[in-house]
Amino acid sequence: MKNTQKPTSAPVHKYRPFHEQIRVDLPDRTWPSKRIEAAPRWCAVDLRDGNQALIDPMSPERKRVMFDLLVKMGYKEIEVGFPSASQTDFDFVRQLIDDDLIPDDVTIQVLTQAREHLIARTYEAIAGAKQAIVHLYNSTSVLQREVVFRTDEQGIVDIALEGARLCKKYEATIPETQVFYEYSPESYTGTELEFALRICNEVLEVLEPTPERKVILNLPATVEMATPNVYADSIEWMSRHLNHRENVILSLHPHNDRGTAVAAAELGYMAGADRIEGCLFGNGERTGNVDLVALGVNLLTQGIDPQIDFSDIDQVKRTVEYCNQLPVPERSPWAGDLVFTAFSGSHQDAIKKGFEAMEARASAEGKTIDEIEWAVPYLPIDPKDLGRSYEAVIRVNSQSGKGGVAYLLKADHAIDLPRKLQIEFSGVVQARTDAEGGEVSSAQIWDIFTDEYLPSTNDDQRWGRFELLSTRSSSDMSGDVHLDVSLRDGDSTHPASAVGNGPVAAFLEIVRSQGFDVTLYDYVEHALSSGGDAQAAAYVELQVDDQRLWGVGIDGDISTASLKAIVSGVNRAIRTRQAAGALAGV
Amino acid sequence: MKNTQKPTSAPVHKYRPFHEQIRVDLPDRTWPSKRIEAAPRWCAVDLRDGNQALIDPMSPERKRVMFDLLVKMGYKEIEVGFPSASQTDFDFVRQLIDDDLIPDDVTIQVLTQAREHLIARTYEAIAGAKQAIVHLYNSTSVLQREVVFRTDEQGIVDIALEGARLCKKYEATIPETQVFYEYSPESYTGTELEFALRICNEVLEVLEPTPERKVILNLPATVEMATPNVYADSIEWMSRHLNHRENVILSLHPHNDRGTAVAAAELGYMAGADRIEGCLFGNGERTGNVDLVALGVNLLTQGIDPQIDFSDIDQVKRTVEYCNQLPVPERSPWAGDLVFTAFSGSHQDAIKKGFEAMEARASAEGKTIDEIEWAVPYLPIDPKDLGRSYEAVIRVNSQSGKGGVAYLLKADHAIDLPRKLQIEFSGVVQARTDAEGGEVSSAQIWDIFTDEYLPSTNDDQRWGRFELLSTRSSSDMSGDVHLDVSLRDGDSTHPASAVGNGPVAAFLEIVRSQGFDVTLYDYVEHALSSGGDAQAAAYVELQVDDQRLWGVGIDGDISTASLKAIVSGVNRAIRTRQAAGALAGV
Repeated sequence: MKNTQKPTSAPVHKYRPFHEQIRVDLPDRTWPSKRIEAAPRWCAVDLRDGNQALIDPMSPERKRVMFDLLVKMGYKEIEVGFPSASQTDFDFVRQLIDDDLIPDDVTIQVLTQAREHLIARTYEAIAGAKQAIVHLYNSTSVLQREVVFRTDEQGIVDIALEGARLCKKYEATIPETQVFYEYSPESYTGTELEFALRICNEVLEVLEPTPERKVILNLPATVEMATPNVYADSIEWMSRHLNHRENVILSLHPHNDRGTAVAAAELGYMAGADRIEGCLFGNGERTGNVDLVALGVNLLTQGIDPQIDFSDIDQVKRTVEYCNQLPVPERSPWAGDLVFTAFSGSHQDAIKKGFEAMEARASAEGKTIDEIEWAVPYLPIDPKDLGRSYEAVIRVNSQSGKGGVAYLLKADHAIDLPRKLQIEFSGVVQARTDAEGGEVSSAQIWDIFTDEYLPSTNDDQRWGRFELLSTRSSSDMSGDVHLDVSLRDGDSTHPASAVGNGPVAAFLEIVRSQGFDVTLYDYVEHALSSGGDAQAAAYVELQVDDQRLWGVGIDGDISTASLKAIVSGVNRAIRTRQAAGALAGV
Repeated sequence: MKNTQKPTSAPVHKYRPFHEQIRVDLPDRTWPSKRIEAAPRWCAVDLRDGNQALIDPMSPERKRVMFDLLVKMGYKEIEVGFPSASQTDFDFVRQLIDDDLIPDDVTIQVLTQAREHLIARTYEAIAGAKQAIVHLYNSTSVLQREVVFRTDEQGIVDIALEGARLCKKYEATIPETQVFYEYSPESYTGTELEFALRICNEVLEVLEPTPERKVILNLPATVEMATPNVYADSIEWMSRHLNHRENVILSLHPHNDRGTAVAAAELGYMAGADRIEGCLFGNGERTGNVDLVALGVNLLTQGIDPQIDFSDIDQVKRTVEYCNQLPVPERSPWAGDLVFTAFSGSHQDAIKKGFEAMEARASAEGKTIDEIEWAVPYLPIDPKDLGRSYEAVIRVNSQSGKGGVAYLLKADHAIDLPRKLQIEFSGVVQARTDAEGGEVSSAQIWDIFTDEYLPSTNDDQRWGRFELLSTRSSSDMSGDVHLDVSLRDGDSTHPASAVGNGPVAAFLEIVRSQGFDVTLYDYVEHALSSGGDAQAAAYVELQVDDQRLWGVGIDGDISTASLKAIVSGVNRAIRTRQAAGALAGV
C-alpha cells in the first residue's frame, strides 16, 4: 500500500539537525547493554528550577510545605533556591537555617552565577547550615557564547574559574558550614563535548575534589536538542574523559522539550552518571524538568528500591498541586487520575482474571497476595503500592451531542467535579440508567447527582442517617479550632464537639466518635457563584471503614460545605453497606 | 560527600525486573548510530485507542470533528474505530463511507478481534469504502496466555491464523473495497521475542504480502515495561528476523506507562520500523499512547518535514480538547500553554539577545528573519512556526500567603481564567503595581481586572470606544445565524447586522466592517453561578490588527457574554494603540 503522505510548507530550512551542530561520536558505547540495578542519588530542584517556572511563584508558606514534603519523601539533596538573585529565596534559606528546619542527613543546595557579589551573598545565605552544596554555573553553549556573552572559549572558561576561585575564597568566611560544590556548564547540550570537558576539568583543578569531598559535575540538557540516546552517548564520553572521575559525582539535569527527559535520564544513568536532578511530576521551565515520580516508580516496577517514599502518591500529588498551583495531568505517569482506570471491557476482563489468578496462586502457596509476584495485565504496578486503587469504569454513553455527564453538570450547574469523582459518578449514572434504559438528559443527571450526594429537600425522599443541623467553631489563635455541632442521627438529635487544626479535622474526630474509621484522602472546593449570594461546593474523598468514596456539600459558607461533604460521604457509605447487607440477606 | 539516602519499605519483592521476564539480547545492535532523516508513515488512532480511554467517549459529532482535524493535518491512515465491538463505532464508520467523507488518499483502519462474528461485522462496517485497513489482533504475552486465554503458544497461534483466514474469506464479500491488513501481537512487550516472531511469520504466510499489497505488522508496547532502548533492541531484532521483510510495513504502537513512549517510538524507528501509531497530545489508555505532536514537531526541529501540518497548534489543541473533553497539559511538548513562556530574567535576557542577533544577521545577509537559521537560546523552535508567540512574563510576587492572582480571582469571584489569559493578566497587574508599589490584595486585583477587561459601571471611569447596547439573533435552521446589534461607537449609536454560522462569527464580521482585521484564536466559557440567576463568563483570544490579546465578557446569556468579550478585546486593542501613539507623540 502506497504512502500518500505529502510535504507541508513547514520551514524546514530554518532548522539545522543536531548532529550538524554538535559532534557526539561514540561507536563503542557500552550503555545500551547496561541495566539499572540501584537508585541514583537524587536531587530535587522543585524549589529552584520548578519554582522559577511558575505563573504564581511559591509563597514562603508554600515553599515550606514543598520542602517538608521532599524531606518526608526521602530526598537528601534539595536545591532550595537562588538566594543571590531573589530576596524571597534568600529569606527562605535563612528561615530553614535559623529555625533549624533541615534534618542532619539532608543537604541544601543553592544556585549561583559566577559573579563576586552574587557569590558573597550566597555564602551569607547558607552561613550556619551544617552542610550545603554551592551550585555554580555559567553558560557554555556555542549559541550563548556568541549571542549572550560575546566572548570566546577562553573567556567562558575564565568566568567559570574566577567563580570557582571566589567560592573557595568565601568558603573561608563560614568555617562552621561544610561546603560541597556542584558545577554546571549550563546549556551543556549545545556545547561542543571537547569544550565541555575542558571547562569541567579546569574547574575541577580549582575545586580540588577528594574522596571525602567529591565534586558534583552536572551536565544539564538545559534545552533538550536530540534523541535521548545522543545525550547518553555524550554522558558516556564525558564519564570516560573526565579527570578525577573517581572523585566526581556525575549528575544529570534533563529538560523535557522533546518529551524524552525521562528516557534521557535513564539512558544517561546507564551511561555512567551517578545522580539525577529533577522535579516532582516534571514541573519546570517550558515543558519541565525530568519527572522524579516517573523515574522513581519506574525503578520500583523493576524490583529496585527508589529510596524515596511513593506509598501515598495522592498525598504527594495534592501537596505539589497546592505548592505549584498547577494541576498534575490526568495521564501523568504513575500518578494521574486516569492511570489506574480501565474503560475497555477486554482490559477489565483481563485485569479481573489477573486478580483471580493471583489469589489462586497465593492461596496455593499459602501466602498473601502481597507476598507473591505482581502479575496483572494492563497494570504494570499494584496501585495499592502507591496508595491508589484500580478502577473499572463503565462509561455513560451520553449521545446528547453536547458531551457527557461532567460536561453537563459544569455547563448547566457550575458543578466542576474532580476527575476521580467524575469517574465515580459515571458509575452511579450508569447503574441508574441501566435500570431505566434510554438516553440521559441534563435534568436527569442533575436529579441523579442530587439524590446520590445531596440531602433531598423533599421530606418523602429524605435519606441518610446523619444531618448537620448547626455548627459553631472558635479559635483561640493557638492553632486549634474548637468545633461544636448539632447532629441529627436517625430520628434523634444530639450535640457533639471536638478539637482539630481546622473544622474539617475536628469534624472527622466527631465522625470517628460515632464509630466510623474515617480518613480524608482528597479535598477540592470551588465557588459556585460570585457576589453577595456566593455559594461554594466542597468535594471530599473519604475512606469510611473499608469503602473509598466521595461526598459533596454545597453551602454559602465554604467551611460548612466541607462538613456537609463529609456527612454526604459517610451517609453514602452507610447506605452502600445497608444495600450490600440487604442483598446478602444480613 | 556521603549519600545518605535510605531504603524504604516499598515492596520490591513483588516486582521482577523486565530482563528476567523477557530476553532481549542484541549486542550488535546498530540503531544507536542511526539518525532519523525522514518522517515515518503515521497512523492516528485517536478515534479508537484514544476514544476508548475517555471518561466521556466522543459523541458522533465530536468524532466527526476529530476525523476532519486529522485529515486536515495530513494524516493518511486513520484508525476510526472498533466497529464490531461498538454500535457507535459501527455507525460512525458507515457514516464516513455512506456520506463520502473520506478523501481518496486517506485510508481508514478498523480494529477487530480474531473471532468470526466480529470479523463478519467488521467487513459489513467497511463495505463500500474505496480502501481500508483491517487491523486484526490477539494477545500473545506470557501473562495473557496464562491468565486470560489459558492456552499454550500453539493455541494462541491458532487464534491468530484462524482470524487471518477468516479475514481473507470475508474479503471476498466486499470486492469493491481494496482491503489491506495489519496484524498486532497485542501485549508484544510481554511476549518472548521468538514467539512474537513465530506468530508474525505464520500470520504473514496466510496474508501473503506482496510488493503492491504489503502487510503492516504492528508491535505494540501495550504496556511499557522497560527502558526505551530495550524496545528498540527488540524492534531491530524483529526487523532482522521477519520473513518477507521487504513486503512488511513494520509499525510501532508505544504506550507511555513509564513516561518514555516518545523515546521508544524514536529509537524504535531508528531500529528499523517504518510506521508509528499514536494520538495527538498522547491521549490513550492509562498514561496514553505516544504523542504524535511531540514526534512530529521533534522532526521539524531537526529540519525534517513531518508531513503533518502543525502550523496552527493552538487550533489543533482546542479541537482535541473539545473532542476528548480533557485538557492538554500546560507543559505538553510544543503545545502546552507554558511551553514558550520565559519567567526567569536571565532566560528573558538571553532570548532578547538571540532575537537581536538574528535580526542583525538577517540584515547583514540581506534576508528576512524567516530565511535564516533559527538560533535563539531557550527556544528550540520559532513559536511562530507553530502559530504561537514567545511570551516573557514578569510575575506578580503576591505574598498574600493564599496564592497568586489567578487563585484569588477564582476563590473570591469564581472567575476561572484560561492559562494564557492568566499570563496576560499577570503582566497587567505587574504594570499597575509597579507604579503603585506594595503588596496586592484580592480587592485590588478585582478592581484591576474589571478596569482592564470589563466596562466600568461608573460613568466617570467609562472607557472603550465600543459598547454593545442590544442584540438579536435568529436562525432559519439553514445553519446560518442572522445577528442584529445596536452598538455604541464613541458618542454615537448605530445598528449593524451580519450573518455567520453562529453569533460569534457574525459579530466578528460586524467588527471587521468597522475596519478592524480581527481573528478569533481561543474561546473559553464557564458558568459563574447556578440556578435561576445564572451568570456566565466568556474569554476570547483575538488578533486585532497586529495585536494578540484577550477580552472578557460576563452576562446572564452565554452568547451575549461572548460578544461582550469580543468588544472587550477590541476596546483593549484600541486603548493600547492609543497609548502607544501618545507615547510616540503621534
